[in-house]
Amino acid sequence: MTTVFDKFGGPAAPSRGRLRPLGLREVTLRPGFWQRRQDVNSANSLPHIRHWLGLSGWLGNFSCTPEERRGREFSDSEVYKFLEALAWEHGRTGDPGVDAMFREVAGQVAAAQLTDGYLNTNFGRPGQQPRYSDLEWGHELYCYGHLIQAAVARARTFGRDDLVEVAIRAADHVCDTFGPDGIASVCGHAEIEPALVELYRVTGDERYREQARLFVERRGHQVLDDIEFGRAYFQDDTPVRDATVLRGHAVRAVYLASGAVDVAVETGDDDLLAAVTRQWRATVSRRTYLTGGIGARHQDEAFGDDFVLPPDRAYSETCAGVGSIMLAWRLLLAGGDAACADLIERVLFNVVATSPSDDGTRFFYTNTLHQRVLGAEPPADAIVPRASSTLRAPWFSVSCCPTNLARTFASLAAYVATTDDEGLQIHQYTAATISTTLPDGAPVGVEIETDYPSRGRILIRICETPRRPWTLSLRVPRWASGALLDGEPVSPGVVAVRRDFTVGSTIVLELPVGPRLTTADPRVDAVRGCVAVERGPVVYCVESVDLPPSVPLDALRLDPSVPLTEDGGAVVATCSVVSLDDSPWPYSTDHLPKNADTTSVTLRPYHDWAARGPSTMRVWLPLDH
Amino acid sequence: MTTVFDKFGGPAAPSRGRLRPLGLREVTLRPGFWQRRQDVNSANSLPHIRHWLGLSGWLGNFSCTPEERRGREFSDSEVYKFLEALAWEHGRTGDPGVDAMFREVAGQVAAAQLTDGYLNTNFGRPGQQPRYSDLEWGHELYCYGHLIQAAVARARTFGRDDLVEVAIRAADHVCDTFGPDGIASVCGHAEIEPALVELYRVTGDERYREQARLFVERRGHQVLDDIEFGRAYFQDDTPVRDATVLRGHAVRAVYLASGAVDVAVETGDDDLLAAVTRQWRATVSRRTYLTGGIGARHQDEAFGDDFVLPPDRAYSETCAGVGSIMLAWRLLLAGGDAACADLIERVLFNVVATSPSDDGTRFFYTNTLHQRVLGAEPPADAIVPRASSTLRAPWFSVSCCPTNLARTFASLAAYVATTDDEGLQIHQYTAATISTTLPDGAPVGVEIETDYPSRGRILIRICETPRRPWTLSLRVPRWASGALLDGEPVSPGVVAVRRDFTVGSTIVLELPVGPRLTTADPRVDAVRGCVAVERGPVVYCVESVDLPPSVPLDALRLDPSVPLTEDGGAVVATCSVVSLDDSPWPYSTDHLPKNADTTSVTLRPYHDWAARGPSTMRVWLPLDH
Repeated sequence: MTTVFDKFGGPAAPSRGRLRPLGLREVTLRPGFWQRRQDVNSANSLPHIRHWLGLSGWLGNFSCTPEERRGREFSDSEVYKFLEALAWEHGRTGDPGVDAMFREVAGQVAAAQLTDGYLNTNFGRPGQQPRYSDLEWGHELYCYGHLIQAAVARARTFGRDDLVEVAIRAADHVCDTFGPDGIASVCGHAEIEPALVELYRVTGDERYREQARLFVERRGHQVLDDIEFGRAYFQDDTPVRDATVLRGHAVRAVYLASGAVDVAVETGDDDLLAAVTRQWRATVSRRTYLTGGIGARHQDEAFGDDFVLPPDRAYSETCAGVGSIMLAWRLLLAGGDAACADLIERVLFNVVATSPSDDGTRFFYTNTLHQRVLGAEPPADAIVPRASSTLRAPWFSVSCCPTNLARTFASLAAYVATTDDEGLQIHQYTAATISTTLPDGAPVGVEIETDYPSRGRILIRICETPRRPWTLSLRVPRWASGALLDGEPVSPGVVAVRRDFTVGSTIVLELPVGPRLTTADPRVDAVRGCVAVERGPVVYCVESVDLPPSVPLDALRLDPSVPLTEDGGAVVATCSVVSLDDSPWPYSTDHLPKNADTTSVTLRPYHDWAARGPSTMRVWLPLDH
Repeated sequence: MTTVFDKFGGPAAPSRGRLRPLGLREVTLRPGFWQRRQDVNSANSLPHIRHWLGLSGWLGNFSCTPEERRGREFSDSEVYKFLEALAWEHGRTGDPGVDAMFREVAGQVAAAQLTDGYLNTNFGRPGQQPRYSDLEWGHELYCYGHLIQAAVARARTFGRDDLVEVAIRAADHVCDTFGPDGIASVCGHAEIEPALVELYRVTGDERYREQARLFVERRGHQVLDDIEFGRAYFQDDTPVRDATVLRGHAVRAVYLASGAVDVAVETGDDDLLAAVTRQWRATVSRRTYLTGGIGARHQDEAFGDDFVLPPDRAYSETCAGVGSIMLAWRLLLAGGDAACADLIERVLFNVVATSPSDDGTRFFYTNTLHQRVLGAEPPADAIVPRASSTLRAPWFSVSCCPTNLARTFASLAAYVATTDDEGLQIHQYTAATISTTLPDGAPVGVEIETDYPSRGRILIRICETPRRPWTLSLRVPRWASGALLDGEPVSPGVVAVRRDFTVGSTIVLELPVGPRLTTADPRVDAVRGCVAVERGPVVYCVESVDLPPSVPLDALRLDPSVPLTEDGGAVVATCSVVSLDDSPWPYSTDHLPKNADTTSVTLRPYHDWAARGPSTMRVWLPLDH
């Protein structure tokens, strides 16, 4: 076994592909929208999660008796995702306190591993179900996946320590048990697939890559038992390379697709890569909310049919947003398509930024686009059911989202930029310092100065450059018609500046972040006759707390003929207020709303909604016509 | 114990109230829309259900060992609902074959009753959970409820036989166990409540009425454990008399409300009756589909918030329709409000008539108003998950709907008419013969001649009349603006004809059943900018099988300026066909659909949809404007 450790890596390190990712120490966020959230994650969310893992007993499960075990069958994975978050955080900051917390938690995990590599607190002990007796719902391989991801993060930011050895033993056990001559099945929740490829990338052991390939190839052939939701729920309905769109449970779907990209890239399987790329494009164009969120259904946390994207009861699970970034990032690295970075930006600003409270200790599990009824603030000390809380909650009985956010915020810098043979590509705009090397070893460094998304001006200053031409590529978002690069118009897509740069020289990209009205494809029936307000990459919404008590949210009709204006970070629209009359039967030969007053309505960023207490909310507003 | 049996009764026999129900032998359906369905129920559905109760093992559960038991925890109730259907059917027809089938099945049930009255195949035996250890989900009292309803039907149509004795022993056991000094809780699924009041009405034993009252009063005080869906799921969030609207699981909600009306009527509790009436009105005006269906959510088969009525993924469970008729019928008897009969008509024509196939051997469990993807025909010999089949299926793993329909069709004649001190009220229009007595004992008889809803002409011929004036009251449906009674305009509501009728005299009500366009309250966001086509009480829809292959269902835009026309039972609308262009991202600053051709589109009754194989379908059509 080789031991190739990239001490400064980040999530996803493909050995091939159009673009090369940078490590967490190559990109440092500077004060701004994202650094503030990364700081809150560090200062508040990580201790909050540590507190709840203890309180809930999910960490204690690693040292308790089977009878004492608490939590759902997959609760081990929350401990692993927390470890992954700590590993990135320590890699990013070098903070010894974070390192100590990592060692403490990892030690408890390591102590629970059996000599044959098996590690799961919910199966196999006296009084528990036997190992691998419930692949549909047991989540054992899923939990290994997150364990391995934590170990990969540790290996890439620290080196081969005890937790890495634990993960390697677990991975070996998985290969022994589920290899070509083993149990010919898969896990009901994908996750082991990308994890094993990543472990291959860290260790060079091709057995892990092969096992991931086997898992990807097996799925879709009805290897799992049927369930009430149907096999599409865990993507066992259609082989990965035959599917045309993502379907079923949204988190499962994007985790699996991420693993399939990893397998395709590392095995040179261009057909598989093309298949996942097609599925992703179809999903973005027909099954994605304006916010970038995915998963329309509460029942099975699943994609709906094409264009079924109701704003109310939108599920749009936070974890599906995280998984969607995992997938889009892999596709971006593999193919270089700017649409992937567009989608990442949208998910970051409107799902990842929406879920946590300002102080990082409460979270949305689902991210609805229409709140009709005032929700109550869940108590600070209670575990709430996963999706039924209407305001942000501190912890859930299925608490996947807080830890998923934590590992994303801690590794956020990785998504800002990449390199290729030609130079440096900037994908996400945030104040940051980038210091890396081009493939020929030449160091390059740039500083990004911007208040984006508040303002559209992005200044890139060259801090370090080889004495030869190279290419700086900048993404112009799809919505940014009218963008200017150093005063010259540029079109959405990628704009490449090839130049013999000098230290101190600057490039200025101006993105038109002014407010705009957005409509939906007419097949999105649920928002027919409505518009949304966006400003740059940020989706806006109206909340009842910004309306006079006499104006019900449902009575607003936006007048598109009056230009939107700005007021600080808010956008002001002109709406008429229709009168809404109750009727014993709500269907009749005519419901012509009677127009009444006109009013100015303040819209604020969707990601800030419900930050001022219970409120009703709309993203999509009916048009006045 | 008194033994007052009304051998010719029907479902719900309140001792007080504005209107008096008629028995099954007082109203006989004649050839027409409903008699055809009642015949299909008799000839096909009842044998079909008997076949599946055997095949599924749910009937065999009454004589097998605990290890051999099959089906869900509430499968006993399907056997009971089947018995209820057989009892009404035998009461209606006197068919000895039906009576023999009843006795055979009832005998198997009776043999499983324990000496203390307990009767449930899923609890209490070795290897099973203890009795009443899971009131939230165990359905033990729910099953008793359906057992008692079957016995009530038998008592009212035959007399006090073995099954009635079984039900009385079970009811006594329930009163002993859950009485004032017993377990102070309720069942997670209401149903025992109306059943006990009905048993009181049959036997005169006030203990049953008191026990029902106790169950109604206890609920809403958090006597059940909390569940992921929240206690509103089983209406244990708010006391029945304090609630303002129906909420939670739709079937549970209407069964409970039915029981509350029964308790209110029999105890003279006008406050409770007023509370349920208010809840019902709010539910009809804000939480009911155009079809009369209720329950918007798949996840918990529950009501959504006010005005959350998405056509796609409408749950609109068939059983919720049946329960909605139970409730509206009780409120009609109690208060005489014609809106109750309006709602019953709507549910009958658009939910109850929609669920079964033409031959009565396949059923919709849910009744969506928008089918986007072609569904497959489930195999004839397979049990399908309850709500995930997209076409009608022969049987479900939770197969509540077929038996609920069967008992409704067998007792359908009961909903046609009532009497009061003044005379006879006709609520539903269908070819029928009515022969009853007024409260003073005077016999009256009428014949209803009509092809309704195909045609709007309803002729009522007096066949028997006392030699004194009495009042014939006719419901004019809410939608029937322009109705004529013997050529004179009458308004929606109730029109009363007080006359010294003579045998052979006729009254003709002309209801304007021509096609019309219907819009929804603007707060029903999901159908903004859309219209539906209705014709009389029948909701219409467009199916893809009626469109040329080049015209996608989603491209139609109805032109309201062109009058609707009729073609046989179909309605023809004029639509423009917009071109739908795929885009990598479905949201933009403008989505102006480009109008193209105009086409005539055929709409057919919603209740017939999917009768010609897989099809996509819409009830609500976007407007061309």
